[in-house]
Amino acid sequence: MIPNLSRVGKTEQDFAAWVAAQQQRTEQRLEQLLPPSHVQPTTLHSAMRYSALDGGKRIRALLCYAAAELSACEPQIADAAACAVELIHANSLVHDDMPCMDDDDMRRGKPSCHKQYDEATALLVGDALQTLAFEVISAPQLYAHSQLTAYQQMRLVHILAQATGSTGMAGGQGIDLASIGKTLSLAELVTMHQMKTGALIQASILLGAISASDAELLAIRDFARNIGLAFQVVDDILDVEADSLTLGKTAGKDADSNKPTYVTILGLPAAKQHALALYQQAITALAPLGDKAQRLRELAGYISQRSF
Amino acid sequence: MIPNLSRVGKTEQDFAAWVAAQQQRTEQRLEQLLPPSHVQPTTLHSAMRYSALDGGKRIRALLCYAAAELSACEPQIADAAACAVELIHANSLVHDDMPCMDDDDMRRGKPSCHKQYDEATALLVGDALQTLAFEVISAPQLYAHSQLTAYQQMRLVHILAQATGSTGMAGGQGIDLASIGKTLSLAELVTMHQMKTGALIQASILLGAISASDAELLAIRDFARNIGLAFQVVDDILDVEADSLTLGKTAGKDADSNKPTYVTILGLPAAKQHALALYQQAITALAPLGDKAQRLRELAGYISQRSF
Repeated sequence: MIPNLSRVGKTEQDFAAWVAAQQQRTEQRLEQLLPPSHVQPTTLHSAMRYSALDGGKRIRALLCYAAAELSACEPQIADAAACAVELIHANSLVHDDMPCMDDDDMRRGKPSCHKQYDEATALLVGDALQTLAFEVISAPQLYAHSQLTAYQQMRLVHILAQATGSTGMAGGQGIDLASIGKTLSLAELVTMHQMKTGALIQASILLGAISASDAELLAIRDFARNIGLAFQVVDDILDVEADSLTLGKTAGKDADSNKPTYVTILGLPAAKQHALALYQQAITALAPLGDKAQRLRELAGYISQRSF
Repeated sequence: MIPNLSRVGKTEQDFAAWVAAQQQRTEQRLEQLLPPSHVQPTTLHSAMRYSALDGGKRIRALLCYAAAELSACEPQIADAAACAVELIHANSLVHDDMPCMDDDDMRRGKPSCHKQYDEATALLVGDALQTLAFEVISAPQLYAHSQLTAYQQMRLVHILAQATGSTGMAGGQGIDLASIGKTLSLAELVTMHQMKTGALIQASILLGAISASDAELLAIRDFARNIGLAFQVVDDILDVEADSLTLGKTAGKDADSNKPTYVTILGLPAAKQHALALYQQAITALAPLGDKAQRLRELAGYISQRSF
């Protein structure tokens, strides 16, 4: 449903190599900043590493790096921001999987944190991963060893906090909880997903773009909003179409638990049309940025396809 | 066991009035910054307010305000810092009370969050209260409308993050979990409580002292370390001696759940001696600061007695 990436300039091979390099970079940076498993409390640290390392496609980190490249953000700032959004994402996954929430036994192809450890540990792991995200982007050495102003660094913290809390990701989860078994309008569904998934996707891009000009930011914000929504529509489609092995989590979960999704509200064909429209709006938003937005374009395709 | 406060200069009435005023101020500021209950997601916001408002002695906020007065910190900075530490504290209480942790049905004299709402909501409430703490102290308007430098504001975030995460409060809870049913040495118990309770108590003081001079900070840090430990020793004593009504939570809980405490390791008389020694060390640390540290001295007595 999405144009073949080879049409958009750079080769697929080049993009795949870039993705692999950024994924590896994210993994290495997270590896370095997560407390070692031998440091007390050993179980908590081991469970934090279990939950945050070796996991997922790192789409939020990729978006952050792509936005950083576009706006000439220094590598160490991009690293900190990329790790922070992945830590917040890991925090949300660990807590979401707990029995009182989605009660999911699998995550990223392995037992979820509360199955591998226990519920109390999973609760603390989520809390501590969230805190670590804020610790990483507020580190004084980040300011000391970069061109970043302290004000810009403070903005990093504030953008991430707004995307994570009750008016962002946690708020979207709250609406999700309250909507189980209810019929939502499309507008209500959009609001829920804009908060639940879109806010952190957007923040990932905005953190990478911390050094962008006002003109660049206009285009980047528009792109971020559309791709944040596209992400969730594709997620809902995959929940129906993919098997558990491909997803790394239990497939068909949302439909089974009677949660409203884009597919249940729009039907599968219209949901696919909607994903395509959002993808195209995201691409259109990047037009003023020219070639330097190429990675973001490619990522938009990657997110919309998720078949690489 | 602690010298009567009337000996330390100002009258008890004056101190009691100051405490009441700061408690009311904290309540009002939290009331303003917590999202209103009518804003979506309404259940989450209502549960956040239920858990963070109208609660406790606000000791962390009081310490923050006292340190702010001593070091001439602007009121709006002190307000933000005081609210942030109380939000982190409320986050930890909501999560601690959950069935997979301490499974406590009462908190601050009313049903704990997961009893009043449900477990999924309590999980989100804790997460969102933590995020709100970081959002409050990273707010751009705080920087715009004060003498605080952006670097100092970033320090606020970093101090709070370090105190809250796996090498601070969450880490202490992790050690606590791992130590149930085990025999801890006094040194191990001290480490656990230094992280679990002491770190946030210390951070409360250090955030209030964000504008303090290096010389002031030396004394303040020494005070903070000692009073942070004293706080937990007194807590362990109260767990044995007070009734549930006075505590506002279930008394005798730690002893019942076979958790190591200062009382179980040292015995009650030695635990009381230890609390007194820590109190005295805290007071001694403040000597170089003279009269301007009077509120901190009074608070040290308040914490050590907790009977006002």
